[in-house]
Amino acid sequence: MDIEAFALSIGHRYARPELLRRALTHRSHGASNNERVEFLGDSVVNCAVALELYHKFPDLTEGELSRLRANLVNQQSLASVARRFDFGAQLLLGEGEVKSGGARRPSILADAVEAVIGAVFLDAGFEAARRVVRTLLGDAIDAIDPASSGKDPKTLLQEHLQGRRMALPQYAVVATRGEAHEQLFEVECVVPELNIRSLGAGTSRRSAEQEAARQAYELALGN
Amino acid sequence: MDIEAFALSIGHRYARPELLRRALTHRSHGASNNERVEFLGDSVVNCAVALELYHKFPDLTEGELSRLRANLVNQQSLASVARRFDFGAQLLLGEGEVKSGGARRPSILADAVEAVIGAVFLDAGFEAARRVVRTLLGDAIDAIDPASSGKDPKTLLQEHLQGRRMALPQYAVVATRGEAHEQLFEVECVVPELNIRSLGAGTSRRSAEQEAARQAYELALGN
Repeated sequence: MDIEAFALSIGHRYARPELLRRALTHRSHGASNNERVEFLGDSVVNCAVALELYHKFPDLTEGELSRLRANLVNQQSLASVARRFDFGAQLLLGEGEVKSGGARRPSILADAVEAVIGAVFLDAGFEAARRVVRTLLGDAIDAIDPASSGKDPKTLLQEHLQGRRMALPQYAVVATRGEAHEQLFEVECVVPELNIRSLGAGTSRRSAEQEAARQAYELALGN
Repeated sequence: MDIEAFALSIGHRYARPELLRRALTHRSHGASNNERVEFLGDSVVNCAVALELYHKFPDLTEGELSRLRANLVNQQSLASVARRFDFGAQLLLGEGEVKSGGARRPSILADAVEAVIGAVFLDAGFEAARRVVRTLLGDAIDAIDPASSGKDPKTLLQEHLQGRRMALPQYAVVATRGEAHEQLFEVECVVPELNIRSLGAGTSRRSAEQEAARQAYELALGN
């Protein structure tokens, strides 16, 4: 996919494509990178998601809205968005990062999502950025169940299985990559009775387990 | 000042004035209050200020932009904005809060500023909210000196006086109000050689001192 097709896939035609290119440039690639626009994008995503939640849940308190937003806008969920829209293939990384698998690192992916949205904001204003936020996060917003949104994926999966009298899921680290200070863990989650195997990646074993559980939980709900 | 005049003073004519009224209603006044719209306003203020800083300081890193924003958008600075635009006179408070001086409490004032901006956002969109943020915070943004913005007001005042070989300022608590869990401190800052006396209020002695120092520092700069 070339960068124009990528831009269309997230739902925005950039008047200034150089903004998109910069938003996809990691600091390891050079001085002209996405760090400043990511600062901007972070605030735009938080504002656009706040507005969606405010309208969608007129009965929730500000504390509940804040908790729902924290579940939607965090490194893990944004990295998951990046994987779905294949941000990794568009990233410009330094040589070292390319070799060490930077295009799969959750922090780099999540930052790129925020930066790309920040670039839309600069290119065409808040409403355009809000549309892209809807494209990227709309499914996650639609899927919110306020009753369960405070719980982490491992808890949700376990409760789902227990409610069906099934055995608990099994987690195992299947790979670790990268150097000590920036390790990436890959964890497999197995639910034998549902024939589910999912893989999650994260910068800690715990976050990789949560990501694997999140995918297994989605598969289990579809079962 | 009636509420329409107040709305004009912050630079917005509300199509739905009931949004403004709710934004000025503290939870002590009833169930229909400003807490949800304050959640929204908080994110709008952060986003609008991020955009201003991004354009104003093209050479600063995201860490420096983030630090500048934290200096502009915090309880103390927003409460100071509220005092300048006389938000206190417009607040709807419960009886207990009226009696205990809630209309002067920094947390209530700062929340009201965010809520009123959130209400503009709901009433007329992001650009309208951004204009009001400029009206309310523009002076503070214009006054930013990136070299000094990491320092707190007491430090700035002390350095200013030391640079002129003057005696250090003296701080004294002149009043405390409210009950133990929600006390309000008033601190006086005196700079004898410049004939400056300033008063600061805050929920802790430390924050009241900083506010008093901030005012004294501004007076000292004008000297």
